[in-house]
Amino acid sequence: MKATIFQGENDVTVEEVKKPEIEDSEDALIRVTHTCVCGSDLWHYRGYSDLVSGSSIGHEPAGVVEEVGDDVTSLEPGDTVLAPFSISCGECEFCRKGLYTSCKNGDSWDGSNGGAQGEYVKCPTADGTLVKVPEEYTNDEMMEKLLPLTDVMCTGHHAAVSAKVSSGDTCIVIGDGAVGLCAVLAAQRLGAERIIAMGHHEDRLEIAEDLGATHTISERGEAAVEKALEITDGGSNHVLECVGGESSMNMAAEVARPGGTVGYVGVPYGLGEEFNLFEYFGDNIELRGGVAPVRKYIDELMEDVLQGNLDPSPVFTKEVSLENIDEGYEAMDDRNAVKVLVRPHT
Amino acid sequence: MKATIFQGENDVTVEEVKKPEIEDSEDALIRVTHTCVCGSDLWHYRGYSDLVSGSSIGHEPAGVVEEVGDDVTSLEPGDTVLAPFSISCGECEFCRKGLYTSCKNGDSWDGSNGGAQGEYVKCPTADGTLVKVPEEYTNDEMMEKLLPLTDVMCTGHHAAVSAKVSSGDTCIVIGDGAVGLCAVLAAQRLGAERIIAMGHHEDRLEIAEDLGATHTISERGEAAVEKALEITDGGSNHVLECVGGESSMNMAAEVARPGGTVGYVGVPYGLGEEFNLFEYFGDNIELRGGVAPVRKYIDELMEDVLQGNLDPSPVFTKEVSLENIDEGYEAMDDRNAVKVLVRPHT
Repeated sequence: MKATIFQGENDVTVEEVKKPEIEDSEDALIRVTHTCVCGSDLWHYRGYSDLVSGSSIGHEPAGVVEEVGDDVTSLEPGDTVLAPFSISCGECEFCRKGLYTSCKNGDSWDGSNGGAQGEYVKCPTADGTLVKVPEEYTNDEMMEKLLPLTDVMCTGHHAAVSAKVSSGDTCIVIGDGAVGLCAVLAAQRLGAERIIAMGHHEDRLEIAEDLGATHTISERGEAAVEKALEITDGGSNHVLECVGGESSMNMAAEVARPGGTVGYVGVPYGLGEEFNLFEYFGDNIELRGGVAPVRKYIDELMEDVLQGNLDPSPVFTKEVSLENIDEGYEAMDDRNAVKVLVRPHT
Repeated sequence: MKATIFQGENDVTVEEVKKPEIEDSEDALIRVTHTCVCGSDLWHYRGYSDLVSGSSIGHEPAGVVEEVGDDVTSLEPGDTVLAPFSISCGECEFCRKGLYTSCKNGDSWDGSNGGAQGEYVKCPTADGTLVKVPEEYTNDEMMEKLLPLTDVMCTGHHAAVSAKVSSGDTCIVIGDGAVGLCAVLAAQRLGAERIIAMGHHEDRLEIAEDLGATHTISERGEAAVEKALEITDGGSNHVLECVGGESSMNMAAEVARPGGTVGYVGVPYGLGEEFNLFEYFGDNIELRGGVAPVRKYIDELMEDVLQGNLDPSPVFTKEVSLENIDEGYEAMDDRNAVKVLVRPHT
């Protein structure tokens, strides 16, 4: 089968690799119909991580179950499934608490599982990981709306939940990438009245407005902070940090109201010695969040998508074929695409 | 009058300075009967802050009101008072929320107010700041028990509250300084069943045991983390970080259970590029706390001290005269004293 391989900085290729096989009785084999490129893949692509050359890559698969192990009870061949970016057993202490990303038996999509930017992936502990899409909703158009639930939509939702956004609130979303845009959508869904989207790209801020942002701030640095403080009359109690960089993490505290909460979901690869915890400490600003337990949120958000009340598909501003996935990486790296969709079998 | 002056790194002296005077109708003038040296004074003493040479220093005064401005309504000359380490108006948005340390009209004890390691201090917005000690409890022995409420006891309590410690919990306290010891006491007061105190000084860990610690860990680094994880079977949901250093902040996340909460109150002067937010991010460990809003907690804790149910005075392991306060700084800097008491008028 074909799969995307990380070759090193700025270099991904599509290679012929061994198709994964059912090895354990709890495994499922998935024919990947939809997948995508993630902002967190870019951390590898840009050389910020220690992912070794030759690794398979990708973690947002959706597709059709081709085969299941003997102990898989909730799925059968032919079922359409969404797969959260992390694999979880569904049975340990942390899965039972809803913290699926800290699963004691957790796994990832790469390595022997095949990687999720390829034609097939194997899913260990399939009952604990995969979410079945009701058959009547498995059309392609709906799958494009559902696909962001494998990562960015649930991650944006985690930012909003972590920042304690609820009905009537004013909140600030930092970051106009796919997660930031999904965070806007999540905040609106949770009933926020005023949603201030901060980013540097006018085209993305326009999407943010379409998704529910009531204000946008495209300025940088101090000018951006001043504008946010002006709109909120001194800062917001709910800040959704969707970047993970040093300046954005500092900015999150600067635009938070004293005693407020920053919900952060941007992978903090970009954090160095300029990170200023004093901004948080001095005004007792809570820092909540982390890697999003997608499996916890996916049923609830899927329900809304199926009912037509939630549509995160505008984050897909570009589609490429699997063979040309490198063009997708490039477009995202150059900020020419928000998020790139791939249909590996077309 | 005499007051302590910060002269530069490792150098404090006692100088004759102008006695502060009532200047505003909301001021009160306090004759300082009890004060102390704080771990956070050591950050200046060790040259970590940008406090300028010639500044007055100290922020934990208790004493007798000598004079009040015309608009002070809750106090009169002769009243004995405790003064939180930060001055607050009691009326702004943040004071009303209990976040007195983010007061919009806040002030500090140094500068024209006289500094709190001296014979007198002026207190602006006295009604919003000072807490009166009921007259029948103003004896010297009780004042020694109450004095830690001006900072370290309420700060330890803030760590416990921020870490969400409640009845029946297992918690970990990192740091065996005065704040760490008070955090042990606070956790016990809140009903924690198991309190694991981590520090590097056997004598201080003995005090921790006297104050309620059920386990102590004196190992360092990885050995300390392993022991904590063993005792808690994988980490505690409630970690009280009472140091503010890089390694202690990292350790706090390492000994926290996934999904748990770190309550941090150590001033993060010691934080540099080795601070690893990934430890928090990967397991969704909340980081709550900051500079303690002492004024919020002082009434409630004073009640317990007056009733004989709380006694943080064991943190005072040394007393010096005001003239010899430099010896107190030295003793704390050398870890030969936990906290140093000063009675400026004896």
